[in-house]
Amino acid sequence: LNIPYERIPVDVVNRDNRQEMLGEKNPAVKIPILELDDGRYLSESNAILWYLARGTKYLPGDAYQQAKVFQWMFFEQNSHEPNLAVARYWVWVLQQPERFRDQLGAKQAAGREVLQVMERTLLTQTFFVAEQYSIADIALYAYTHVAPEGGFDLEPFPAIRQWLARMKSQPGYVPMDE
Amino acid sequence: LNIPYERIPVDVVNRDNRQEMLGEKNPAVKIPILELDDGRYLSESNAILWYLARGTKYLPGDAYQQAKVFQWMFFEQNSHEPNLAVARYWVWVLQQPERFRDQLGAKQAAGREVLQVMERTLLTQTFFVAEQYSIADIALYAYTHVAPEGGFDLEPFPAIRQWLARMKSQPGYVPMDE
Repeated sequence: LNIPYERIPVDVVNRDNRQEMLGEKNPAVKIPILELDDGRYLSESNAILWYLARGTKYLPGDAYQQAKVFQWMFFEQNSHEPNLAVARYWVWVLQQPERFRDQLGAKQAAGREVLQVMERTLLTQTFFVAEQYSIADIALYAYTHVAPEGGFDLEPFPAIRQWLARMKSQPGYVPMDE
Repeated sequence: LNIPYERIPVDVVNRDNRQEMLGEKNPAVKIPILELDDGRYLSESNAILWYLARGTKYLPGDAYQQAKVFQWMFFEQNSHEPNLAVARYWVWVLQQPERFRDQLGAKQAAGREVLQVMERTLLTQTFFVAEQYSIADIALYAYTHVAPEGGFDLEPFPAIRQWLARMKSQPGYVPMDE
């Protein structure tokens, strides 16, 4: 959207000072937090995506299609992130798969079911909603494209791999590293 | 909203036939699923709430306030439901707290942190967004008002208990049992 912004990195491992640092901005003391120009705050990545995407091509105007976008974004927060992102956090961010060995197998099994849901959907669709690139795709792309870092093999999911390539080829795509 | 509807109960314990029964309606084979009059389907409780609440007093019209409603609904799906509802499922629905003993303590500790976030917020607010009863409150009410069934003591959360009473006194309130 070419909206200028300043990024303030926050430590995701050492969370000791989060209440002090984030408490006034988000009662849940989680990141990301968006600070608007008028000083108000907004949290939860998908609420931020919706706020920024209103009135743009990244959010369908039709009410039912918009509800389907939300359907996939709530799926992302309830089924996808808790498995794919948490497994990646243990394996790749903390580098401590052994410490979480008892739970890692279950997370990875549940994560593969989530990937299966996405694969089934993408076998007949180009994007998740209305054949249109939307914030539903953006929300799901985040932890899917780095899923191998959490021990997920994307080889058995050809439709997902094609969708990932499709996402990367969208105008305005910016790799997370930059 | 006084919209007539038919409720079709689905077994939440025996999930053997879910793919067959729900696969065409929701690729994630989860309930609830709303079937519209035209035969289209919508899933994820909070996407359904949003779809039904559009244009009603249960959703603020202002974009920022609407984004705050989403913020609390994504918090509900990512932080609240995975702890409070899952603990209740193990303890009260399955009646098998012993089977999940290794994980139950962590779920309940995380659930109490979630309740603390709600308590802090409700100490200075009547409802979660814009001093107005909205679908953010409805989403959070569901598993909060039955939290004791998951082993959560609400005694240390007076602001939550007042909010629960406030919710029950809203016009149109229907107990889940009915």
